[in-house]
Amino acid sequence: MLTAEIHVTLKDLVLDPQGTTLKRSMETMGYQNIEEVRMGKFIQVRFDSDDRKEVEKKVDEMCRQILSNPVIEQYSYSLTEGE
Amino acid sequence: MLTAEIHVTLKDLVLDPQGTTLKRSMETMGYQNIEEVRMGKFIQVRFDSDDRKEVEKKVDEMCRQILSNPVIEQYSYSLTEGE
Repeated sequence: MLTAEIHVTLKDLVLDPQGTTLKRSMETMGYQNIEEVRMGKFIQVRFDSDDRKEVEKKVDEMCRQILSNPVIEQYSYSLTEGE
Repeated sequence: MLTAEIHVTLKDLVLDPQGTTLKRSMETMGYQNIEEVRMGKFIQVRFDSDDRKEVEKKVDEMCRQILSNPVIEQYSYSLTEGE
């Protein structure tokens, strides 16, 4: 059993309106010293397989094909054993 | 400068329709051996402060008040130095 933990985030140069809105809410609620807020996705995919190499290849393909928009987003992932 | 990396995920017992849809898409595209897909949020908050204790307290409050719905979601975070 392998689990992929995938982070999909906007590229640094891409504006993040959701993050900006969140930052403004935080400031309205009295939080100070916030420089920037960025919103991203966190996806966990659990595989019924122990073949690290094969799973890694699949995850990389999935990230490119369905989980991220390569024009504006970047992704990273790590594989962990177990549930 | 401290950055908080926050993960907000659905509690284990809560159904995740977005994850289920993603799993189905992956299967339609020919990916096998997928047991489960869970979708969550990944939020990065950059603080203009080096006071770990104070920032930690703020992040914990934010998670409870704005970033997660404690009824169905759980959160975790880590603080890293620098950008």
